[in-house]
Amino acid sequence: MVARSSSVLIFFFVFLAISSAFPKNKDKYKPCKHLVLFFHDIIYNGKNAANATSAIVAAPQGSNLTILAPNFHFGNIAVFDDPITLDNNLHSKPIGRAQGMYIYDTKNTFTSWLGFSFSLNSTDYQGTINFIGADPIMIKYRDISVVGGTGDFFMHRGVATIDTDSYEGEVYFRLKVDIKFYECW
Amino acid sequence: MVARSSSVLIFFFVFLAISSAFPKNKDKYKPCKHLVLFFHDIIYNGKNAANATSAIVAAPQGSNLTILAPNFHFGNIAVFDDPITLDNNLHSKPIGRAQGMYIYDTKNTFTSWLGFSFSLNSTDYQGTINFIGADPIMIKYRDISVVGGTGDFFMHRGVATIDTDSYEGEVYFRLKVDIKFYECW
Amino acid sequence: MVARSSSVLIFFFVFLAISSAFPKNKDKYKPCKHLVLFFHDIIYNGKNAANATSAIVAAPQGSNLTILAPNFHFGNIAVFDDPITLDNNLHSKPIGRAQGMYIYDTKNTFTSWLGFSFSLNSTDYQGTINFIGADPIMIKYRDISVVGGTGDFFMHRGVATIDTDSYEGEVYFRLKVDIKFYECW
Repeated sequence: MVARSSSVLIFFFVFLAISSAFPKNKDKYKPCKHLVLFFHDIIYNGKNAANATSAIVAAPQGSNLTILAPNFHFGNIAVFDDPITLDNNLHSKPIGRAQGMYIYDTKNTFTSWLGFSFSLNSTDYQGTINFIGADPIMIKYRDISVVGGTGDFFMHRGVATIDTDSYEGEVYFRLKVDIKFYECW
Repeated sequence: MVARSSSVLIFFFVFLAISSAFPKNKDKYKPCKHLVLFFHDIIYNGKNAANATSAIVAAPQGSNLTILAPNFHFGNIAVFDDPITLDNNLHSKPIGRAQGMYIYDTKNTFTSWLGFSFSLNSTDYQGTINFIGADPIMIKYRDISVVGGTGDFFMHRGVATIDTDSYEGEVYFRLKVDIKFYECW
Repeated sequence: MVARSSSVLIFFFVFLAISSAFPKNKDKYKPCKHLVLFFHDIIYNGKNAANATSAIVAAPQGSNLTILAPNFHFGNIAVFDDPITLDNNLHSKPIGRAQGMYIYDTKNTFTSWLGFSFSLNSTDYQGTINFIGADPIMIKYRDISVVGGTGDFFMHRGVATIDTDSYEGEVYFRLKVDIKFYECW
């Protein structure tokens, strides 16, 4: 009985750790196409112009464009052009670019709002995937919407689960994006 | 006959007053899910940091970040994190947050462009709803697109009718959002 | 044989010139509605306030709001309210407005990210069409997503092919937008 209880307990904590923000309906449906990709963001901090892949372009009153704003970066807009890779290595050959913006939009925790596209240009995939959604960064798995696509992803829709695979200071982060398409054409 | 004419006249004016910008096709279809919610926006004006739920983060040349720009605020971008309530009372218990941005994008009238999400976290609803669309503020009822959702709103699409329920100076406004989903999963 | 070879060669170059970025799947499906429209953007440069239809509202560190940023305008956000016409003449009677934003998001070529709406108000069309997507400007034909619509375009989805029909200095550009709806209601 003790053994069983601990298993239940372990299962419970593992379940918590791996649970999505809102998993419910997602598991009822089988995706018609499935893609797992990584993208890498290096934000400009005034000193890394050569390497930076994103830049702060808007900030609330009192902030500037080389340091993310206080209060959980509330009010910052960053524009990005980030390499997309098949694995979690920044130096792997990119298969496309993640391009668009993120907005820090909460004053008491880290939350961003994403509007961006994947432009894929590899042997396997040619086309774009368009995303929007809320990204409550402190939650392990967050779901955003795939609202459309072109080329190989013509008219596709789906849900993408985002996971911060790495976060180094406030300069580099890597997102794992698990894209499940439920409408394929 | 006179009585009847006035009824017609009254009906006509009521019809004008309640008519949407573009009602036509909307009434042909029955929503598969229907939600009416309110959200409350208090814009930062340099003095209300504690209460403000939104901030001007971008402005055209010559403007600043504590006063909305002249010319119908053309060129202002505001980032927001607004409480969502079930009724029109700012002090009701929030059931989630409306997060994203609005852009004032017309020089000769008040029009904004909206990109935002509802993150709902209540007993009844867990999930996000993603919106984009044009918001011609001076029209009573405006329709924007529900382009996707997650959790309880997994893969949903629909149309949301927005109505400025209250507008107090240039600091507080409250939007009533009548969300009709026509694709549910 | 020589004649035939040159024909093949000419065909090949014409094919290159007219090819879309990712044409593949698009040609398998027949649109349920088809619209070709033009919109005209005159960006504010500090001197053309009366004519300008768009303005730079965000810029990376070191740039300002009257000149597009160096490095392929990386980091600029422009807000626009552009007239939509049926032909390529800026002075034709507008049938609506294109409103929203474009973001220059690449450091080594001209690429933008688009989030905008068409608000149409003509005898033939009443309603809005909502677009997002990546716009690799240097490619002749680029596809973005039509993610929703209202009024006559209630719940529509599709793909819009954008083509820079004219580009005059860095002040005026005209986009031809070939909208193919594949989901009509």
